[in-house]
Amino acid sequence: MIESAGPRVLQGHGTENDFVVLPDPDGSVWPEHRLDASLVRRLCDRRAGLGGDGVLRVVPSALVPDAAAVLGEALPQCTWFMDHRNADGSSAEMCGNGIRLFLHVLLAEGLLDRAAAEAGVLVGTRGGPRRVGARPEGGYWVDMGPARPLGTGETVLGGRRMSGVGISMGNPHLVCLVQDDVESLDLTALPQVDPAMFPEGVNVEVVNVLTTDGMAGADAHVRMRVHERGVGETRSCGTGACAVASAALTAAGRTTGTVVVDVPGGRLSIDVDDRTTVLSGPAVVIAAGALTPEWLAG
Amino acid sequence: MIESAGPRVLQGHGTENDFVVLPDPDGSVWPEHRLDASLVRRLCDRRAGLGGDGVLRVVPSALVPDAAAVLGEALPQCTWFMDHRNADGSSAEMCGNGIRLFLHVLLAEGLLDRAAAEAGVLVGTRGGPRRVGARPEGGYWVDMGPARPLGTGETVLGGRRMSGVGISMGNPHLVCLVQDDVESLDLTALPQVDPAMFPEGVNVEVVNVLTTDGMAGADAHVRMRVHERGVGETRSCGTGACAVASAALTAAGRTTGTVVVDVPGGRLSIDVDDRTTVLSGPAVVIAAGALTPEWLAG
Repeated sequence: MIESAGPRVLQGHGTENDFVVLPDPDGSVWPEHRLDASLVRRLCDRRAGLGGDGVLRVVPSALVPDAAAVLGEALPQCTWFMDHRNADGSSAEMCGNGIRLFLHVLLAEGLLDRAAAEAGVLVGTRGGPRRVGARPEGGYWVDMGPARPLGTGETVLGGRRMSGVGISMGNPHLVCLVQDDVESLDLTALPQVDPAMFPEGVNVEVVNVLTTDGMAGADAHVRMRVHERGVGETRSCGTGACAVASAALTAAGRTTGTVVVDVPGGRLSIDVDDRTTVLSGPAVVIAAGALTPEWLAG
Repeated sequence: MIESAGPRVLQGHGTENDFVVLPDPDGSVWPEHRLDASLVRRLCDRRAGLGGDGVLRVVPSALVPDAAAVLGEALPQCTWFMDHRNADGSSAEMCGNGIRLFLHVLLAEGLLDRAAAEAGVLVGTRGGPRRVGARPEGGYWVDMGPARPLGTGETVLGGRRMSGVGISMGNPHLVCLVQDDVESLDLTALPQVDPAMFPEGVNVEVVNVLTTDGMAGADAHVRMRVHERGVGETRSCGTGACAVASAALTAAGRTTGTVVVDVPGGRLSIDVDDRTTVLSGPAVVIAAGALTPEWLAG
Protein backbone atom coordinates (compact mmCIF):
# COMPACT_ATOMS: atom_id res chain seq x y z
CA MET A 1 0.00 0.00 0.00
CA ILE A 2 1.25 3.47 -0.89
CA GLU A 3 2.87 5.09 2.12
CA SER A 4 1.42 8.41 3.20
CA ALA A 5 4.90 9.92 3.05
CA GLY A 6 3.77 13.14 1.43
CA PRO A 7 1.98 16.08 3.03
CA ARG A 8 -1.62 15.71 4.12
CA VAL A 9 -4.30 16.95 1.72
CA LEU A 10 -8.11 17.06 1.60
CA GLN A 11 -10.55 17.71 -1.22
CA GLY A 12 -13.85 19.34 -0.51
CA HIS A 13 -16.48 21.78 -1.70
CA GLY A 14 -19.10 24.27 -0.58
CA THR A 15 -22.09 24.14 -2.96
CA GLU A 16 -19.65 22.81 -5.61
CA ASN A 17 -17.14 25.61 -5.24
CA ASP A 18 -14.27 23.17 -4.78
CA PHE A 19 -10.90 23.39 -3.08
CA VAL A 20 -7.71 21.54 -2.32
CA VAL A 21 -7.22 21.95 1.45
CA LEU A 22 -3.71 21.80 2.92
CA PRO A 23 -3.55 21.47 6.71
CA ASP A 24 -0.45 23.22 8.03
CA PRO A 25 -1.18 23.39 11.77
CA ASP A 26 2.33 24.44 12.81
CA GLY A 27 3.30 26.29 9.63
CA SER A 28 6.14 23.90 8.85
CA VAL A 29 4.51 21.87 6.05
CA TRP A 30 3.87 24.58 3.47
CA PRO A 31 6.31 27.49 3.81
CA GLU A 32 5.83 30.15 1.11
CA HIS A 33 8.79 28.99 -0.99
CA ARG A 34 7.24 25.52 -1.18
CA LEU A 35 3.63 26.54 -1.84
CA ASP A 36 4.51 28.87 -4.70
CA ALA A 37 2.22 29.92 -7.56
CA SER A 38 3.46 27.09 -9.77
CA LEU A 39 2.57 24.41 -7.21
CA VAL A 40 -0.85 25.99 -6.59
CA ARG A 41 -1.54 25.85 -10.34
CA ARG A 42 -0.43 22.19 -10.43
CA LEU A 43 -2.66 21.30 -7.45
CA CYS A 44 -5.68 22.99 -9.06
CA ASP A 45 -5.11 21.41 -12.49
CA ARG A 46 -8.17 19.21 -13.00
CA ARG A 47 -6.26 16.45 -14.86
CA ALA A 48 -2.58 16.58 -13.91
CA GLY A 49 -3.37 17.57 -10.29
CA LEU A 50 -6.18 17.13 -7.78
CA GLY A 51 -8.29 19.88 -9.31
CA GLY A 52 -10.08 22.77 -7.68
CA ASP A 53 -11.21 26.37 -7.92
CA GLY A 54 -8.47 27.20 -5.43
CA VAL A 55 -6.28 26.11 -2.51
CA LEU A 56 -7.04 26.72 1.18
CA ARG A 57 -4.04 26.40 3.51
CA VAL A 58 -4.99 25.99 7.18
CA VAL A 59 -2.34 27.84 9.21
CA PRO A 60 -2.17 29.78 12.51
CA SER A 61 -2.56 33.53 11.88
CA ALA A 62 0.43 34.19 14.12
CA LEU A 63 2.64 32.36 11.62
CA VAL A 64 1.52 34.33 8.53
CA PRO A 65 3.94 37.23 7.92
CA ASP A 66 1.38 39.58 6.33
CA ALA A 67 -1.55 38.66 8.62
CA ALA A 68 -0.94 41.50 11.10
CA ALA A 69 -1.41 44.09 8.36
CA VAL A 70 -4.87 42.78 7.35
CA LEU A 71 -6.13 41.62 10.77
CA GLY A 72 -4.90 44.58 12.91
CA GLU A 73 -6.08 44.40 16.51
CA ALA A 74 -8.13 41.27 15.72
CA LEU A 75 -4.97 39.22 15.13
CA PRO A 76 -4.88 37.64 18.64
CA GLN A 77 -8.56 36.54 18.26
CA CYS A 78 -7.96 34.96 14.85
CA THR A 79 -6.35 31.67 15.86
CA TRP A 80 -6.57 30.31 12.32
CA PHE A 81 -5.87 31.97 8.99
CA MET A 82 -7.44 30.94 5.67
CA ASP A 83 -4.50 31.23 3.28
CA HIS A 84 -6.58 31.23 0.10
CA ARG A 85 -5.02 31.01 -3.36
CA ASN A 86 -6.77 31.16 -6.72
CA ALA A 87 -6.33 28.38 -9.28
CA ASP A 88 -4.04 30.68 -11.29
CA GLY A 89 -1.65 30.82 -8.31
CA SER A 90 -2.48 34.35 -7.16
CA SER A 91 -3.42 35.23 -3.57
CA ALA A 92 -7.14 35.50 -2.87
CA GLU A 93 -9.10 37.37 -0.25
CA MET A 94 -12.41 35.99 1.01
CA CYS A 95 -14.75 33.32 -0.30
CA GLY A 96 -18.11 32.64 1.34
CA ASN A 97 -18.15 29.05 0.09
CA GLY A 98 -14.49 28.37 0.87
CA ILE A 99 -14.64 29.66 4.43
CA ARG A 100 -17.47 27.20 5.28
CA LEU A 101 -15.24 24.38 4.08
CA PHE A 102 -12.34 25.88 6.04
CA LEU A 103 -14.37 25.79 9.25
CA HIS A 104 -15.58 22.25 8.48
CA VAL A 105 -11.96 21.13 8.13
CA LEU A 106 -10.96 22.85 11.41
CA LEU A 107 -13.65 20.78 13.16
CA ALA A 108 -12.99 17.53 11.29
CA GLU A 109 -9.25 17.74 11.88
CA GLY A 110 -9.73 18.44 15.60
CA LEU A 111 -8.21 21.93 15.39
CA LEU A 112 -11.34 23.57 16.84
CA ASP A 113 -13.96 22.16 19.18
CA ARG A 114 -17.62 22.08 18.26
CA ALA A 115 -18.85 24.23 21.16
CA ALA A 116 -16.48 27.04 20.18
CA ALA A 117 -17.53 26.72 16.53
CA GLU A 118 -21.23 26.92 17.44
CA ALA A 119 -20.57 30.02 19.53
CA GLY A 120 -18.82 31.61 16.55
CA VAL A 121 -15.14 32.36 15.98
CA LEU A 122 -13.07 34.87 14.07
CA VAL A 123 -11.02 33.51 11.15
CA GLY A 124 -8.25 35.52 9.55
CA THR A 125 -8.43 36.10 5.79
CA ARG A 126 -6.63 38.45 3.41
CA GLY A 127 -9.94 40.36 3.32
CA GLY A 128 -9.73 40.89 7.10
CA PRO A 129 -11.14 39.02 10.11
CA ARG A 130 -14.42 37.17 9.43
CA ARG A 131 -16.91 35.85 11.97
CA VAL A 132 -18.03 32.30 11.16
CA GLY A 133 -19.79 29.50 13.00
CA ALA A 134 -21.27 26.02 12.88
CA ARG A 135 -25.05 25.54 12.93
CA PRO A 136 -26.27 22.96 15.48
CA GLU A 137 -28.50 21.39 12.80
CA GLY A 138 -25.59 21.14 10.33
CA GLY A 139 -23.93 23.53 7.94
CA TYR A 140 -21.97 26.69 8.59
CA TRP A 141 -22.59 30.43 8.62
CA VAL A 142 -20.39 33.40 7.80
CA ASP A 143 -20.97 37.10 8.37
CA MET A 144 -20.54 38.63 4.90
CA GLY A 145 -21.10 42.28 5.87
CA PRO A 146 -23.86 44.60 4.66
CA ALA A 147 -25.20 44.86 1.12
CA ARG A 148 -24.82 48.37 -0.30
CA PRO A 149 -27.13 49.55 -3.13
CA LEU A 150 -25.48 50.84 -6.32
CA GLY A 151 -28.62 51.93 -8.21
CA THR A 152 -30.35 50.34 -11.20
CA GLY A 153 -28.54 49.13 -14.31
CA GLU A 154 -28.94 47.10 -17.47
CA THR A 155 -27.16 44.23 -19.14
CA VAL A 156 -27.34 42.24 -22.35
CA LEU A 157 -26.89 38.57 -21.58
CA GLY A 158 -27.23 35.80 -24.17
CA GLY A 159 -28.83 38.27 -26.59
CA ARG A 160 -31.46 39.48 -24.12
CA ARG A 161 -31.66 42.93 -22.57
CA MET A 162 -32.38 42.83 -18.84
CA SER A 163 -32.63 45.45 -16.13
CA GLY A 164 -31.28 44.85 -12.69
CA VAL A 165 -30.19 46.40 -9.42
CA GLY A 166 -26.56 47.06 -8.64
CA ILE A 167 -25.42 45.87 -5.22
CA SER A 168 -21.99 45.92 -3.64
CA MET A 169 -20.95 43.14 -1.23
CA GLY A 170 -17.43 44.52 -1.28
CA ASN A 171 -17.41 43.35 -4.90
CA PRO A 172 -19.99 44.58 -7.47
CA HIS A 173 -23.11 42.67 -8.55
CA LEU A 174 -25.94 43.33 -10.97
CA VAL A 175 -29.00 41.31 -9.89
CA CYS A 176 -31.65 40.75 -12.57
CA LEU A 177 -35.02 39.35 -11.46
CA VAL A 178 -36.45 37.72 -14.58
CA GLN A 179 -39.69 35.99 -15.61
CA ASP A 180 -38.11 33.44 -17.99
CA ASP A 181 -36.86 30.25 -16.36
CA VAL A 182 -33.21 30.95 -15.54
CA GLU A 183 -32.39 27.34 -16.54
CA SER A 184 -33.18 28.28 -20.16
CA LEU A 185 -30.82 31.30 -20.36
CA ASP A 186 -27.47 31.22 -22.15
CA LEU A 187 -24.79 32.51 -19.76
CA THR A 188 -21.85 31.56 -21.96
CA ALA A 189 -20.95 35.01 -23.23
CA LEU A 190 -19.58 37.94 -21.25
CA PRO A 191 -22.52 40.08 -20.09
CA GLN A 192 -22.52 43.57 -21.61
CA VAL A 193 -22.82 46.32 -18.98
CA ASP A 194 -22.34 50.08 -18.76
CA PRO A 195 -18.60 50.52 -18.07
CA ALA A 196 -19.32 53.88 -16.42
CA MET A 197 -21.44 52.10 -13.77
CA PHE A 198 -19.09 49.11 -13.38
CA PRO A 199 -15.58 50.29 -14.29
CA GLU A 200 -13.97 47.12 -12.87
CA GLY A 201 -16.55 44.70 -14.31
CA VAL A 202 -19.44 43.10 -12.47
CA ASN A 203 -20.85 39.74 -11.44
CA VAL A 204 -24.26 39.28 -13.05
CA GLU A 205 -27.00 37.21 -11.38
CA VAL A 206 -30.22 36.11 -13.08
CA VAL A 207 -32.95 35.20 -10.62
CA ASN A 208 -36.40 33.58 -10.50
CA VAL A 209 -38.43 34.40 -7.41
CA LEU A 210 -40.12 31.04 -6.72
CA THR A 211 -42.21 32.19 -3.77
CA THR A 212 -42.18 34.90 -1.18
CA ASP A 213 -43.64 32.81 1.61
CA GLY A 214 -43.45 29.15 0.64
CA MET A 215 -40.57 27.74 2.65
CA ALA A 216 -40.67 27.17 6.40
CA GLY A 217 -38.92 29.96 8.25
CA ALA A 218 -37.95 31.87 5.12
CA ASP A 219 -39.43 35.06 3.70
CA ALA A 220 -38.55 34.18 0.11
CA HIS A 221 -37.25 31.33 -2.01
CA VAL A 222 -35.35 32.11 -5.19
CA ARG A 223 -33.31 30.29 -7.84
CA MET A 224 -30.25 31.96 -9.34
CA ARG A 225 -27.45 31.51 -11.85
CA VAL A 226 -24.35 33.67 -11.85
CA HIS A 227 -21.73 34.86 -14.34
CA GLU A 228 -18.64 35.80 -12.31
CA ARG A 229 -16.36 38.46 -13.77
CA GLY A 230 -13.12 37.00 -15.06
CA VAL A 231 -14.41 33.44 -14.65
CA GLY A 232 -17.70 32.80 -16.46
CA GLU A 233 -20.66 30.87 -15.10
CA THR A 234 -19.97 29.13 -11.79
CA ARG A 235 -21.89 26.62 -9.66
CA SER A 236 -22.13 29.00 -6.70
CA CYS A 237 -21.13 32.50 -5.60
CA GLY A 238 -21.44 33.46 -1.93
CA THR A 239 -21.43 37.23 -2.36
CA GLY A 240 -23.80 36.81 -5.32
CA ALA A 241 -26.30 34.89 -3.22
CA CYS A 242 -26.18 37.67 -0.59
CA ALA A 243 -26.75 40.34 -3.25
CA VAL A 244 -29.65 38.32 -4.68
CA ALA A 245 -31.25 37.93 -1.23
CA SER A 246 -31.05 41.67 -0.64
CA ALA A 247 -32.62 42.39 -4.05
CA ALA A 248 -35.38 39.79 -3.53
CA LEU A 249 -36.31 41.29 -0.14
CA THR A 250 -36.35 44.80 -1.61
CA ALA A 251 -38.62 43.61 -4.44
CA ALA A 252 -40.98 42.18 -1.79
CA GLY A 253 -41.07 45.53 0.02
CA ARG A 254 -38.82 44.42 2.90
CA THR A 255 -35.41 45.44 4.18
CA THR A 256 -34.76 42.45 6.43
CA GLY A 257 -35.58 38.73 6.38
CA THR A 258 -34.42 35.26 5.42
CA VAL A 259 -34.06 34.11 1.81
CA VAL A 260 -33.43 30.55 0.60
CA VAL A 261 -31.25 30.76 -2.50
CA ASP A 262 -30.88 27.74 -4.82
CA VAL A 263 -27.67 27.89 -6.84
CA PRO A 264 -26.66 25.25 -9.43
CA GLY A 265 -24.35 23.65 -6.83
CA GLY A 266 -26.85 23.41 -3.97
CA ARG A 267 -28.85 25.45 -1.48
CA LEU A 268 -27.81 28.51 0.54
CA SER A 269 -29.75 30.52 3.09
CA ILE A 270 -29.24 34.24 3.64
CA ASP A 271 -30.26 36.26 6.69
CA VAL A 272 -30.40 40.01 6.14
CA ASP A 273 -30.78 42.39 9.09
CA ASP A 274 -30.21 46.13 9.54
CA ARG A 275 -26.54 45.64 10.16
CA THR A 276 -25.20 42.78 8.05
CA THR A 277 -25.77 39.72 5.83
CA VAL A 278 -25.20 36.17 7.08
CA LEU A 279 -24.65 33.37 4.54
CA SER A 280 -25.38 29.79 5.61
CA GLY A 281 -24.79 26.58 3.71
CA PRO A 282 -23.19 23.17 3.56
CA ALA A 283 -19.58 22.06 3.23
CA VAL A 284 -18.28 18.55 2.58
CA VAL A 285 -14.90 16.84 2.56
CA ILE A 286 -14.84 14.31 -0.30
CA ALA A 287 -11.60 12.53 0.53
CA ALA A 288 -8.61 12.91 2.83
CA GLY A 289 -5.13 11.57 2.28
CA ALA A 290 -1.63 12.56 1.27
CA LEU A 291 0.10 13.85 -1.83
CA THR A 292 2.61 11.37 -3.22
CA PRO A 293 6.34 12.17 -3.32
CA GLU A 294 6.36 11.13 -7.01
CA TRP A 295 3.79 13.79 -7.90
CA LEU A 296 5.50 16.45 -5.78
CA ALA A 297 8.77 15.68 -7.55
CA GLY A 298 7.15 15.87 -11.00
CA MET B 1 -7.49 14.57 12.07
CA ILE B 2 -10.10 13.02 9.80
CA GLU B 3 -10.23 9.26 10.28
CA SER B 4 -9.66 7.16 7.18
CA ALA B 5 -12.88 5.30 7.89
CA GLY B 6 -13.99 5.27 4.28
CA PRO B 7 -12.73 3.06 1.45
CA ARG B 8 -9.26 3.62 0.07
CA VAL B 9 -8.96 5.75 -3.07
CA LEU B 10 -6.16 7.05 -5.30
CA GLN B 11 -6.08 9.72 -7.97
CA GLY B 12 -3.69 9.44 -10.88
CA HIS B 13 -3.17 9.95 -14.57
CA GLY B 14 -1.38 8.65 -17.65
CA THR B 15 -0.40 11.59 -19.89
CA GLU B 16 -3.28 13.53 -18.27
CA ASN B 17 -5.94 10.92 -18.97
CA ASP B 18 -7.04 10.89 -15.34
CA PHE B 19 -8.74 8.31 -13.15
CA VAL B 20 -10.12 7.63 -9.72
CA VAL B 21 -8.55 4.30 -8.69
CA LEU B 22 -10.36 2.05 -6.19
CA PRO B 23 -8.27 -0.80 -4.75
CA ASP B 24 -10.48 -3.80 -4.03
CA PRO B 25 -7.90 -6.56 -3.48
CA ASP B 26 -10.35 -9.11 -2.07
CA GLY B 27 -13.46 -7.93 -3.90
CA SER B 28 -15.26 -7.01 -0.68
CA VAL B 29 -14.90 -3.21 -0.81
CA TRP B 30 -16.76 -2.43 -4.03
CA PRO B 31 -19.39 -5.03 -4.88
CA GLU B 32 -21.40 -4.17 -7.99
CA HIS B 33 -24.43 -2.93 -6.08
CA ARG B 34 -22.23 -0.43 -4.26
CA LEU B 35 -20.18 0.79 -7.24
CA ASP B 36 -23.21 1.50 -9.39
CA ALA B 37 -23.41 3.96 -12.30
CA SER B 38 -24.64 6.74 -10.03
CA LEU B 39 -21.63 6.46 -7.69
CA VAL B 40 -19.21 6.30 -10.65
CA ARG B 41 -20.72 9.54 -11.99
CA ARG B 42 -20.38 11.16 -8.55
CA LEU B 43 -16.74 10.05 -8.21
CA CYS B 44 -15.90 11.45 -11.67
CA ASP B 45 -17.71 14.76 -11.11
CA ARG B 46 -14.92 17.34 -11.23
CA ARG B 47 -16.48 19.60 -8.56
CA ALA B 48 -18.79 17.55 -6.34
CA GLY B 49 -16.51 14.48 -6.51
CA LEU B 50 -12.83 13.69 -7.00
CA GLY B 51 -13.01 14.14 -10.76
CA GLY B 52 -11.70 11.96 -13.56
CA ASP B 53 -12.19 10.62 -17.06
CA GLY B 54 -13.16 7.32 -15.45
CA VAL B 55 -12.86 4.89 -12.57
CA LEU B 56 -10.45 1.94 -12.39
CA ARG B 57 -11.31 -0.72 -9.81
CA VAL B 58 -8.41 -3.06 -8.96
CA VAL B 59 -9.92 -6.51 -8.36
CA PRO B 60 -8.87 -10.17 -8.83
CA SER B 61 -10.16 -11.53 -12.16
CA ALA B 62 -11.41 -14.63 -10.38
CA LEU B 63 -13.88 -12.45 -8.45
CA VAL B 64 -15.40 -10.71 -11.50
CA PRO B 65 -18.53 -12.59 -12.61
CA ASP B 66 -18.26 -11.71 -16.30
CA ALA B 67 -14.45 -12.03 -16.55
CA ALA B 68 -14.48 -15.65 -17.73
CA ALA B 69 -16.50 -14.72 -20.80
CA VAL B 70 -14.01 -12.08 -21.97
CA LEU B 71 -10.77 -13.71 -20.78
CA GLY B 72 -11.49 -17.32 -21.80
CA GLU B 73 -8.53 -19.66 -21.30
CA ALA B 74 -6.35 -16.70 -20.21
CA LEU B 75 -8.40 -16.25 -17.02
CA PRO B 76 -6.00 -18.17 -14.73
CA GLN B 77 -3.05 -16.07 -16.00
CA CYS B 78 -4.88 -12.76 -15.41
CA THR B 79 -4.43 -12.37 -11.66
CA TRP B 80 -5.79 -8.81 -11.75
CA PHE B 81 -8.74 -7.33 -13.60
CA MET B 82 -9.04 -3.67 -14.64
CA ASP B 83 -12.70 -2.95 -13.90
CA HIS B 84 -12.89 0.25 -15.98
CA ARG B 85 -15.93 2.55 -15.96
CA ASN B 86 -16.49 5.68 -18.01
CA ALA B 87 -17.32 8.99 -16.33
CA ASP B 88 -20.96 8.56 -17.44
CA GLY B 89 -21.18 5.36 -15.36
CA SER B 90 -21.09 2.89 -18.25
CA SER B 91 -18.68 -0.06 -18.44
CA ALA B 92 -15.54 0.51 -20.49
CA GLU B 93 -13.21 -1.91 -22.28
CA MET B 94 -9.54 -1.01 -22.67
CA CYS B 95 -7.58 2.21 -22.24
CA GLY B 96 -3.88 2.41 -23.09
CA ASN B 97 -3.36 5.29 -20.66
CA GLY B 98 -5.48 3.80 -17.90
CA ILE B 99 -3.81 0.40 -17.97
CA ARG B 100 -0.37 1.98 -17.37
CA LEU B 101 -1.79 3.66 -14.27
CA PHE B 102 -3.43 0.36 -13.26
CA LEU B 103 -0.04 -1.41 -13.40
CA HIS B 104 1.62 1.46 -11.52
CA VAL B 105 -0.96 1.10 -8.74
CA LEU B 106 -0.46 -2.70 -8.58
CA LEU B 107 3.24 -2.07 -7.95
CA ALA B 108 2.80 0.88 -5.58
CA GLU B 109 0.20 -0.96 -3.51
CA GLY B 110 2.40 -4.05 -3.25
CA LEU B 111 -0.04 -6.26 -5.19
CA LEU B 112 2.61 -7.21 -7.80
CA ASP B 113 6.36 -7.39 -7.47
CA ARG B 114 8.67 -5.39 -9.70
CA ALA B 115 10.51 -8.36 -11.22
CA ALA B 116 7.22 -9.87 -12.38
CA ALA B 117 6.10 -6.52 -13.77
CA GLU B 118 9.37 -6.06 -15.71
CA ALA B 119 8.97 -9.55 -17.17
CA GLY B 120 5.47 -8.65 -18.31
CA VAL B 121 2.09 -9.85 -17.02
CA LEU B 122 -1.39 -10.39 -18.39
CA VAL B 123 -4.11 -8.08 -17.04
CA GLY B 124 -7.79 -8.83 -17.53
CA THR B 125 -9.94 -6.13 -19.17
CA ARG B 126 -13.40 -6.12 -20.71
CA GLY B 127 -11.56 -5.94 -24.06
CA GLY B 128 -9.83 -9.25 -23.25
CA PRO B 129 -6.45 -10.12 -21.71
CA ARG B 130 -3.72 -7.51 -22.28
CA ARG B 131 0.04 -7.95 -21.88
CA VAL B 132 1.64 -5.09 -19.97
CA GLY B 133 4.93 -4.46 -18.20
CA ALA B 134 7.15 -2.02 -16.35
CA ARG B 135 10.21 -0.55 -18.06
CA PRO B 136 13.41 -0.77 -15.97
CA GLU B 137 14.15 2.90 -16.74
CA GLY B 138 10.66 4.00 -15.64
CA GLY B 139 7.26 4.02 -17.28
CA TYR B 140 5.07 1.19 -18.48
CA TRP B 141 4.32 -0.57 -21.76
CA VAL B 142 1.20 -2.25 -23.10
CA ASP B 143 0.71 -4.44 -26.14
CA MET B 144 -2.03 -2.70 -28.12
CA GLY B 145 -2.29 -5.18 -30.99
CA PRO B 146 -1.63 -4.53 -34.68
CA ALA B 147 -2.67 -1.45 -36.66
CA ARG B 148 -4.92 -2.32 -39.60
CA PRO B 149 -5.14 0.06 -42.60
CA LEU B 150 -8.59 1.30 -43.62
CA GLY B 151 -7.62 3.27 -46.76
CA THR B 152 -7.43 7.02 -47.33
CA GLY B 153 -10.11 9.46 -46.26
CA GLU B 154 -10.89 13.13 -45.83
CA THR B 155 -12.23 15.35 -43.08
CA VAL B 156 -13.20 18.96 -42.54
CA LEU B 157 -11.91 20.15 -39.21
CA GLY B 158 -12.14 23.73 -37.96
CA GLY B 159 -13.13 24.86 -41.46
CA ARG B 160 -10.16 23.18 -43.17
CA ARG B 161 -10.26 20.24 -45.53
CA MET B 162 -7.60 17.61 -44.77
CA SER B 163 -6.78 14.22 -46.19
CA GLY B 164 -5.70 11.38 -43.97
CA VAL B 165 -5.24 7.67 -43.65
CA GLY B 166 -7.79 5.48 -41.94
CA ILE B 167 -6.36 3.05 -39.38
CA SER B 168 -8.11 0.62 -37.05
CA MET B 169 -6.64 -0.14 -33.62
CA GLY B 170 -9.81 -2.04 -32.76
CA ASN B 171 -11.44 1.40 -32.87
CA PRO B 172 -11.31 3.62 -36.00
CA HIS B 173 -8.90 6.53 -36.54
CA LEU B 174 -8.31 9.04 -39.33
CA VAL B 175 -4.71 10.30 -39.11
CA CYS B 176 -4.01 13.58 -40.92
CA LEU B 177 -0.36 14.59 -41.38
CA VAL B 178 -0.46 18.38 -41.78
CA GLN B 179 2.01 21.18 -42.55
CA ASP B 180 0.34 23.84 -40.37
CA ASP B 181 1.37 23.83 -36.71
CA VAL B 182 -1.20 21.59 -35.00
CA GLU B 183 -1.18 24.00 -32.03
CA SER B 184 -2.90 26.58 -34.24
CA LEU B 185 -5.80 24.36 -35.34
CA ASP B 186 -9.33 24.65 -33.96
CA LEU B 187 -10.48 21.20 -32.77
CA THR B 188 -13.63 22.44 -31.05
CA ALA B 189 -16.17 21.30 -33.62
CA LEU B 190 -17.08 17.76 -34.57
CA PRO B 191 -14.91 16.70 -37.56
CA GLN B 192 -16.92 16.06 -40.71
CA VAL B 193 -16.13 12.67 -42.26
CA ASP B 194 -17.65 10.37 -44.88
CA PRO B 195 -20.24 8.31 -42.96
CA ALA B 196 -19.90 5.49 -45.52
CA MET B 197 -16.24 5.08 -44.52
CA PHE B 198 -16.81 5.56 -40.77
CA PRO B 199 -20.38 4.47 -40.01
CA GLU B 200 -19.74 4.48 -36.24
CA GLY B 201 -17.80 7.73 -36.17
CA VAL B 202 -14.04 8.14 -35.99
CA ASN B 203 -11.26 9.57 -33.84
CA VAL B 204 -9.40 12.23 -35.83
CA GLU B 205 -5.70 12.94 -35.24
CA VAL B 206 -3.82 15.93 -36.65
CA VAL B 207 -0.06 15.43 -36.75
CA ASN B 208 3.15 17.36 -37.35
CA VAL B 209 6.15 15.21 -38.21
CA LEU B 210 8.95 17.00 -36.33
CA THR B 211 11.78 14.80 -37.54
CA THR B 212 12.26 11.33 -38.91
CA ASP B 213 15.66 10.77 -37.31
CA GLY B 214 16.22 13.36 -34.62
CA MET B 215 15.59 11.59 -31.32
CA ALA B 216 17.96 8.99 -29.88
CA GLY B 217 16.71 5.48 -30.54
CA ALA B 218 13.60 6.60 -32.39
CA ASP B 219 12.85 6.53 -36.11
CA ALA B 220 10.49 9.49 -35.98
CA HIS B 221 9.28 12.21 -33.61
CA VAL B 222 5.80 13.64 -34.09
CA ARG B 223 3.38 15.96 -32.30
CA MET B 224 -0.33 15.21 -32.36
CA ARG B 225 -3.70 16.46 -31.18
CA VAL B 226 -6.80 14.29 -31.15
CA HIS B 227 -10.57 14.71 -31.36
CA GLU B 228 -12.12 11.58 -29.81
CA ARG B 229 -15.55 10.55 -31.05
CA GLY B 230 -18.24 11.21 -28.47
CA VAL B 231 -15.86 13.21 -26.28
CA GLY B 232 -14.13 16.06 -28.14
CA GLU B 233 -10.48 17.03 -27.86
CA THR B 234 -8.58 15.14 -25.17
CA ARG B 235 -5.09 15.44 -23.65
CA SER B 236 -4.06 11.97 -24.79
CA CYS B 237 -5.37 8.92 -26.66
CA GLY B 238 -3.41 5.66 -26.53
CA THR B 239 -4.93 4.01 -29.59
CA GLY B 240 -4.64 7.34 -31.43
CA ALA B 241 -0.91 7.55 -30.69
CA CYS B 242 -0.48 4.00 -32.04
CA ALA B 243 -2.40 4.86 -35.22
CA VAL B 244 -0.33 8.03 -35.66
CA ALA B 245 2.94 6.09 -35.22
CA SER B 246 1.87 3.61 -37.88
CA ALA B 247 0.93 6.40 -40.30
CA ALA B 248 4.19 8.30 -39.64
CA LEU B 249 6.27 5.20 -40.36
CA THR B 250 4.32 4.50 -43.56
CA ALA B 251 4.86 8.11 -44.68
CA ALA B 252 8.61 7.61 -44.11
CA GLY B 253 8.56 4.46 -46.26
CA ARG B 254 8.84 2.04 -43.33
CA THR B 255 6.61 -0.67 -41.88
CA THR B 256 8.37 -1.08 -38.52
CA GLY B 257 10.20 1.18 -36.09
CA THR B 258 9.95 3.37 -33.00
CA VAL B 259 8.07 6.68 -32.93
CA VAL B 260 8.09 9.28 -30.15
CA VAL B 261 4.63 10.86 -30.00
CA ASP B 262 4.07 14.12 -28.11
CA VAL B 263 0.46 14.54 -27.02
CA PRO B 264 -0.90 17.60 -25.14
CA GLY B 265 -0.67 15.61 -21.87
CA GLY B 266 2.91 14.37 -22.24
CA ARG B 267 5.15 12.05 -24.23
CA LEU B 268 4.47 8.51 -25.46
CA SER B 269 6.68 6.11 -27.37
CA ILE B 270 5.36 3.53 -29.83
CA ASP B 271 7.16 0.43 -31.10
CA VAL B 272 5.71 -1.05 -34.28
CA ASP B 273 6.83 -4.46 -35.51
CA ASP B 274 5.40 -6.96 -38.00
CA ARG B 275 3.11 -8.43 -35.38
CA THR B 276 1.88 -5.74 -33.01
CA THR B 277 2.10 -2.23 -31.58
CA VAL B 278 3.53 -1.52 -28.12
CA LEU B 279 2.64 1.74 -26.37
CA SER B 280 4.99 3.04 -23.65
CA GLY B 281 4.55 6.02 -21.37
CA PRO B 282 4.39 7.40 -17.85
CA ALA B 283 1.82 7.01 -15.09
CA VAL B 284 1.65 8.91 -11.82
CA VAL B 285 -0.36 8.70 -8.61
CA ILE B 286 -1.16 12.23 -7.44
CA ALA B 287 -2.56 11.45 -4.01
CA ALA B 288 -3.69 8.43 -1.99
CA GLY B 289 -6.20 8.40 0.83
CA ALA B 290 -9.77 7.51 1.70
CA LEU B 291 -13.23 8.67 0.75
CA THR B 292 -15.09 10.21 3.67
CA PRO B 293 -18.25 8.64 5.09
CA GLU B 294 -19.96 12.05 4.85
CA TRP B 295 -19.38 12.22 1.07
CA LEU B 296 -20.41 8.58 0.57
CA ALA B 297 -23.63 9.28 2.47
CA GLY B 298 -24.37 12.41 0.42
